[in-house]
Amino acid sequence: MFEKYDVIVVGAGHAGCEAAHAAATMGSKVLLATMNLQTIAQMSCNPAMGGVAKGQIVREIDALGGMSGIISDKTMIQFRMLNRSKGPAMWSPRCQSDRFRFSEEWRWALEANTNIDFWQEMVTGLIIEDKRAIGVITSLGLKIHADTVVLTNGTFLNGLIHIGEKNFGGGRAGERASVGLTADLEKLGFKSGRMKTGTPPRVDKRSIDFSKMEEQLGDENPEKFSYTNTPSLKQQRSCWISWTNQEVHDELKKGFDKSPMFNGKIRGLGPRYCPSVEDKINRFADKDRHQIFLEPEGWDTVEMYVNGFSTSLPEDIQYNAIRKIPGFENVKMFRPGYAIEYDYFPPTQLKLTLETKLVENLYFAGQINGTTGYEEAASQGLMAGINAHLKSKKKDPFILKRNEAYIGVLIDDLINKGTDEPYRMFTSRAEFRTLLRQDNADIRLTPKAHSIGLASVERLERVKVKIEQSEEIYSSLQNMKVDPSEANGFLESNSSSSLRERTTLYNLLKRPELNIDQLREVSPDLDSLLVSTDNEVIQQAEIKVKYERYIEKELQMAEKMNKLENLSINPDFDYEKLTSLSIEARHKLKDIKPATLGQASRISGVSPADISVLMVYLGR
Amino acid sequence: MFEKYDVIVVGAGHAGCEAAHAAATMGSKVLLATMNLQTIAQMSCNPAMGGVAKGQIVREIDALGGMSGIISDKTMIQFRMLNRSKGPAMWSPRCQSDRFRFSEEWRWALEANTNIDFWQEMVTGLIIEDKRAIGVITSLGLKIHADTVVLTNGTFLNGLIHIGEKNFGGGRAGERASVGLTADLEKLGFKSGRMKTGTPPRVDKRSIDFSKMEEQLGDENPEKFSYTNTPSLKQQRSCWISWTNQEVHDELKKGFDKSPMFNGKIRGLGPRYCPSVEDKINRFADKDRHQIFLEPEGWDTVEMYVNGFSTSLPEDIQYNAIRKIPGFENVKMFRPGYAIEYDYFPPTQLKLTLETKLVENLYFAGQINGTTGYEEAASQGLMAGINAHLKSKKKDPFILKRNEAYIGVLIDDLINKGTDEPYRMFTSRAEFRTLLRQDNADIRLTPKAHSIGLASVERLERVKVKIEQSEEIYSSLQNMKVDPSEANGFLESNSSSSLRERTTLYNLLKRPELNIDQLREVSPDLDSLLVSTDNEVIQQAEIKVKYERYIEKELQMAEKMNKLENLSINPDFDYEKLTSLSIEARHKLKDIKPATLGQASRISGVSPADISVLMVYLGR
Repeated sequence: MFEKYDVIVVGAGHAGCEAAHAAATMGSKVLLATMNLQTIAQMSCNPAMGGVAKGQIVREIDALGGMSGIISDKTMIQFRMLNRSKGPAMWSPRCQSDRFRFSEEWRWALEANTNIDFWQEMVTGLIIEDKRAIGVITSLGLKIHADTVVLTNGTFLNGLIHIGEKNFGGGRAGERASVGLTADLEKLGFKSGRMKTGTPPRVDKRSIDFSKMEEQLGDENPEKFSYTNTPSLKQQRSCWISWTNQEVHDELKKGFDKSPMFNGKIRGLGPRYCPSVEDKINRFADKDRHQIFLEPEGWDTVEMYVNGFSTSLPEDIQYNAIRKIPGFENVKMFRPGYAIEYDYFPPTQLKLTLETKLVENLYFAGQINGTTGYEEAASQGLMAGINAHLKSKKKDPFILKRNEAYIGVLIDDLINKGTDEPYRMFTSRAEFRTLLRQDNADIRLTPKAHSIGLASVERLERVKVKIEQSEEIYSSLQNMKVDPSEANGFLESNSSSSLRERTTLYNLLKRPELNIDQLREVSPDLDSLLVSTDNEVIQQAEIKVKYERYIEKELQMAEKMNKLENLSINPDFDYEKLTSLSIEARHKLKDIKPATLGQASRISGVSPADISVLMVYLGR
Repeated sequence: MFEKYDVIVVGAGHAGCEAAHAAATMGSKVLLATMNLQTIAQMSCNPAMGGVAKGQIVREIDALGGMSGIISDKTMIQFRMLNRSKGPAMWSPRCQSDRFRFSEEWRWALEANTNIDFWQEMVTGLIIEDKRAIGVITSLGLKIHADTVVLTNGTFLNGLIHIGEKNFGGGRAGERASVGLTADLEKLGFKSGRMKTGTPPRVDKRSIDFSKMEEQLGDENPEKFSYTNTPSLKQQRSCWISWTNQEVHDELKKGFDKSPMFNGKIRGLGPRYCPSVEDKINRFADKDRHQIFLEPEGWDTVEMYVNGFSTSLPEDIQYNAIRKIPGFENVKMFRPGYAIEYDYFPPTQLKLTLETKLVENLYFAGQINGTTGYEEAASQGLMAGINAHLKSKKKDPFILKRNEAYIGVLIDDLINKGTDEPYRMFTSRAEFRTLLRQDNADIRLTPKAHSIGLASVERLERVKVKIEQSEEIYSSLQNMKVDPSEANGFLESNSSSSLRERTTLYNLLKRPELNIDQLREVSPDLDSLLVSTDNEVIQQAEIKVKYERYIEKELQMAEKMNKLENLSINPDFDYEKLTSLSIEARHKLKDIKPATLGQASRISGVSPADISVLMVYLGR
């Protein structure tokens, strides 16, 4: 019934969609199998993309030729660049999305790709031959063959939804769980675990008193996620801020004895940095209030998402508590919040390509790897899709290093450190975050993505122009000079110290209190150079001038690290014979089988002393 | 947690949406409870509204102030007036819909109604007090109270999906079944049965060879469903026609031994007039081909619906057979066709208001009553919603007679005759189909709907204008005359016999070979009268002239019938004492408890002789 595919992708959430799109764009014949074609690319939790570190990931996905940035741009209803007051390493784009449009745009994008076929059915098992995956088996018993298989099952594997003391099977509210695949994988030797995540109640906008809340508008000049020519936002929708209080907490506490989190019914660990409201009250007992962030679910719908109020307490407790929040006095819920437990597979069972170590040609991406977040899922999907394609074409794998991309940090962390709680990206996880900025993801990644056939020529040309033009501005700034007589009035009015001699604009721009836009006032030459230049390009040059030293320093560190990274270790290396290694290190190294010394150095439990031993042995 | 509602509607398909909208528009506080808010108003089967008799129902829904016509107009991608070559009683509007937009527009329409609250959860039982429904119980055990409850569960009650020898629980492909409610209703004394329906495979447009198929375009001047000011269609999408052949049938027959239809696995009866392809081959063994009608699922999607190929044969049989249809040689399926069995409640357990006889304040609408079709479901939902509202406000019920609306025929048929196979509307079911035309549904019904507070004043004004203007044209036609010298050239060129004396346009228009548009050529007066008149109004006048005699005749018949209809029978009437009634009649009359003699006359098994007996007894 089916042709043999190059790649089968199981699941059509953020990870599955990116995986299918990437592999198909690179030339693979792809089958996308999903339990329900009507729910492609559902935003299961909040209607937003990006945020701190996550926004950088979306920019990276876009730079690589993925779709999350483009879809986000097309469907956003609000945009904010977070942390604008901090250094550019911290700038993080974030948008609110129209949940319906987001899902729909993804579907059109996938349908527009003639290399993607669709199949609506539950996948319940794998076809394995000689420890290699060669296809999948569906609930109808159909066998579909492929060179490679990417699993992106999200929260659906044996999903169990909890609300208070009640629980029932389901992959999402109103949707069935996926059963069979976990057992099949365990039979193959995979270790699985349970994780938990949660979602807040959805409420009726028409029942909210916004006068008691603080409005949060989008940016005045909204930017975008994609480096391509996506439309820019003409109008925006607001979010609204309120706060819990002691009364809210008291109401919530009444349900603590029935909380599946506290009474042991839920075994899986939840996301530390996106805790349920009962968790926050419990863990931060000294805090007398927590922020509630009310997000519209789309341009027109009256459904709203109560960010900050994720909970699995009994629905009546949820109801009584939420009504004590200012603005929510008469709120009507559409559905209660809930927690969901699901199976994941500790990601130390994966290679850097996201291929499993146990079964060749099998790739995992997204929540199945113990991560949380749309952006984390999408980026893994993209990388798994790329590598599944490359493998099926017998080409070299595509791996991003920690100093090249947040995506590199994410995957390196996952496979080396593993995780027993939902893993979320932060800027602090990246050693080289001055390098891994949201503004330069295209410069970092598009040439690489083009070389493997994912990013288009147009994308590459765009990056080349950006680099050339920003270099031109950079050198012009070094050449353009101003006299004290020209500049001092301006400097004084900007509380900047006066000049004694003719100075380059480059030197002036290094001053923290001045920015490039202001310098246009003193230098008509600069102004005429910039007047028809893209803001993105100007920003790039400005960042280079202002943060040059930090960038240089990180580049040197990265260089050192690369050296370790280039020292590869044979996967069959016998660590047991190196008795000078600590026992824990031997154990971990044997288990994880790092591909390089750099990777070995990041395994928790492997000390710098162990690395020295290995270095000596490997001939350094 | 919940206020007490006037009306709770369970289910948000065509029936549930109309019910909620109607009751809320009339002033009830309504709770719409659905298993999944993301799937409101899904077109579970083909992406089309209307058709023969069904199109008339949509027009009636619209005339009454329901939403199906407006939503259809806003979301259609093709429109055709079927049977245009026949008399106006047969004209039937039909459209192809964008499945995604249809569902979305319904959601916006419901959200825009401030009297409707939403709750996403499965309803598993009723709260009953003194044989009256006073609310519902949900899967979480929540109790929600209301004056009246409308059940519109569609195919979800204990839904069981069959594909070949495999079967699994589900309310629709990819969605869960609803469990609990049937048992609860049976405990209350309701009789339930099983029905079956089916759906064809969905296929990938990109894999179809359209050159081998016949294109079916929409009408050149597409009309609409709604009498209101909805936008008219500017561009359209085509459908495509192909045919099965002996090869297709041979492939299908290979699976007959595994067919759940033929091997007894499916107990419920399927829709007679929408049979599966295997059923058609089996029942019409002499026919060597059956039509296949390929419908786009929306403006942009590549998913297509294979109308005429509904099947529950094993998926590989489906696949091998469909590929033998011209144009489908390389077709890719998105999902196989399937059959679904579900619980229904024989509708003889209902009153004319769709309230159940057993439990007061409880209403059933849609497939739960054993009907098939979106239009049949929507119209029942509308009537149940209206009556649930009226009941909660202690107002008189709203009932449409057989000579007033197809909706009247539908409900009268259901509650008197019952059905043991999915009931579908046909023009032949209506005795008064010359009265019940699609062009005059507003004239028939809008004044009634306005009087109960559903249809708006604007709608009523629009109808008044339509009536006035068409009457004006009608009398002008009687007054305007032409001389033989003016008309004979025109008549000759239209193969119509010549005039000998001055004649009214009215008389000329009675000639079957002439229409009102042509008459404008001979009469400048008529032309200047019509030039700024709505086409709808002109049509109305023309139909009145041309079909006057038929209309008169049916009006007289209807008059007679109304007399029987006005003879009401006490529900406690003791038929047993009337020994001159046949035993079967006594049995059926006791069972169904007809409200009028007219209703009694339409019960199958009650003969004209029995009616005479009753008439005598009732004092006629």
